Amino acid sequence: MTELFNFEIKARDGGARLGRITMPRGEIRTPAFMPVGTVGTVKGMYLDQVKGAGADIILGNTYHLMLRPGAERLEKLGGLHKFIGWQGPILTDSGGFQVMSLSKIRKLTERGVTFQSHIDGRKYEVTPERSMEIQRLLGSDIQMQFDECLAFPHSEKEAERAMQLSLRWASRSRHAHGNQPGRACFGIVQGGVTRRLREESAAGLKDIGFHGYAVGGLAVGEGQELMLSTLDFTTPVMPDDKPRYLMGVGTPDDIIESVARGIDMFDCVMPTRSGRHGQAFTRFGKMNLRNAKHAEDMRPIDPTSDCPATSQYSRAYIHHLIRSGEMLGMMLLSWVNIAYYQHLMQGIRQAIADGRYADFMAETKQNWARGEALDS
Amino acid sequence: MTELFNFEIKARDGGARLGRITMPRGEIRTPAFMPVGTVGTVKGMYLDQVKGAGADIILGNTYHLMLRPGAERLEKLGGLHKFIGWQGPILTDSGGFQVMSLSKIRKLTERGVTFQSHIDGRKYEVTPERSMEIQRLLGSDIQMQFDECLAFPHSEKEAERAMQLSLRWASRSRHAHGNQPGRACFGIVQGGVTRRLREESAAGLKDIGFHGYAVGGLAVGEGQELMLSTLDFTTPVMPDDKPRYLMGVGTPDDIIESVARGIDMFDCVMPTRSGRHGQAFTRFGKMNLRNAKHAEDMRPIDPTSDCPATSQYSRAYIHHLIRSGEMLGMMLLSWVNIAYYQHLMQGIRQAIADGRYADFMAETKQNWARGEALDS
Repeated sequence: MTELFNFEIKARDGGARLGRITMPRGEIRTPAFMPVGTVGTVKGMYLDQVKGAGADIILGNTYHLMLRPGAERLEKLGGLHKFIGWQGPILTDSGGFQVMSLSKIRKLTERGVTFQSHIDGRKYEVTPERSMEIQRLLGSDIQMQFDECLAFPHSEKEAERAMQLSLRWASRSRHAHGNQPGRACFGIVQGGVTRRLREESAAGLKDIGFHGYAVGGLAVGEGQELMLSTLDFTTPVMPDDKPRYLMGVGTPDDIIESVARGIDMFDCVMPTRSGRHGQAFTRFGKMNLRNAKHAEDMRPIDPTSDCPATSQYSRAYIHHLIRSGEMLGMMLLSWVNIAYYQHLMQGIRQAIADGRYADFMAETKQNWARGEALDS
Repeated sequence: MTELFNFEIKARDGGARLGRITMPRGEIRTPAFMPVGTVGTVKGMYLDQVKGAGADIILGNTYHLMLRPGAERLEKLGGLHKFIGWQGPILTDSGGFQVMSLSKIRKLTERGVTFQSHIDGRKYEVTPERSMEIQRLLGSDIQMQFDECLAFPHSEKEAERAMQLSLRWASRSRHAHGNQPGRACFGIVQGGVTRRLREESAAGLKDIGFHGYAVGGLAVGEGQELMLSTLDFTTPVMPDDKPRYLMGVGTPDDIIESVARGIDMFDCVMPTRSGRHGQAFTRFGKMNLRNAKHAEDMRPIDPTSDCPATSQYSRAYIHHLIRSGEMLGMMLLSWVNIAYYQHLMQGIRQAIADGRYADFMAETKQNWARGEALDS
């Protein structure tokens, strides 16, 4: 492990951890939410809005970027950071999840996966070695091992097979990552919802040795209860002194519950995707701006917010824009939601620092449940 | 005429006029280009970007806004300015053009037009009186008379009939507008491409008396040559001491040619619409960012521009975003183009002030023709 990547736990409250990752491109306050910049853009947002909302790190998708503009091209142009204009750290996934969910005609072997691009049908092969090479070419700061991600439901036998394969791929990924000073490599714990498999996966990954450890294969349709019960027995067997990243999660409620179970990092398309469809996340719960009840409501979504989209545009105007299919409606609600997620993370961090995380969770959930009454 | 609306000509150079409209909501430097905010948003842009680019006034579409969110609703909510968050003047068209081009099952009578909404099929009637009422309810600063706008080609007989009807509607519109201190009412010269009809229309409108005069029924498919030759005999018969507005025009070349013929105001969806389709307007001509030649070009569109979208994002990145169908690509190119149009207007105004408009036109056209060579 290189000293250029450092994770420090500054406070604990129950299972929750307040921490800080320091690396050459900047500091990541944890628990952290990473906005998703799929193809090199957090959809509908300027990156200074993302930064201004409080995001320390964003995510890029290896699968999308390898197809377009392409990894070798991005390296030639100076890397992903320069290309998109983001100075802070970037985490890239390994492409495993999107290969399964988006591409066509997959063939999975011990060696890797072959698939056809969902854009132009061109054939690609991704192996653990190639995935790590792509991530290195992109200039990613946190690179994820290549893994096999199963959809839910699946049999325990399937989960075991995929977990074992992912473990062998973890070893090859870690080897391929090699020593890139200041750039981290994370392993991914798999094993479905079975305790024995999660434990075996975590132990195997720890033996290989990574800068951080992710929980994969959750939030794929199993539901919150099963996700959290899986976390209950998974995070305790993951290294305590390394960051823990729950991939692809989730709702604000998923996040506060997972932080209580020792998760430090999150990513999800939900704030931007829901925003494009008219939904706002707020401190008093979800709000569907398509709903006719907002048509003459000149109040902002939340006057107390630091985010201009949240405090300076009326619900009536955003309702009108969303109903009219206007880009600005999607732009504003994406901003509202990214800002709320970052506001939530800041609240989480403060509560852990203050040793009142359980109270914070209860209050936050109460506010969500009380809904707009809070706002009047 | 109320003194709250004032038009002052500060300099002349050939037919070109440098002027200033002052009215309660602000000053409009002419020649002016008005970005189009069809349904209450300049598509893909924040209004502070529009303002920052140099726009003094924007346009709203009566037809779109009467359908959604509705004129009475907008008045109830405090008017269009408050609704969209724009402090400066707003010009609204009368709905005539969109009724013809967008709506279904039209019935045109002396009284007005009945049509079905292109959104939900609901039936509406717009008369000159209703059009002016809607524009007053919106709180529009410059309200356009209701007119009949013909598509091209049409017979001279048709043009004459429509012009005469528009003239009668002009009288009703002006009467309906009444006296709204600080809010102007503009007449629209019609008459197709026939000199006699344009002269008759202009004379009739002058008799009625408006705060400004528009040229309607051009840029509807007749081509630039016919448009300019029509202007050649139309602007000279329009009042010299009032602003002249060429509706729905146009390309940068259309604009500089029309300014030379005495036009003071323009509006067009071209900068935003073309931007959404990947086209940039620059001081060295048009640039299609979809083109593969930009894929590895890390230069900004124009490093000398004051607009961040133009000077701080690479062509390669914008190419990638446009190819990927990402909102940010459309957002950036809309901004690039609105900024270029405003930059062009500023250049036009400076050239008239300096008494070198003919040279300015020649140089500007040379730069467009030299293309990107200018940039290297």
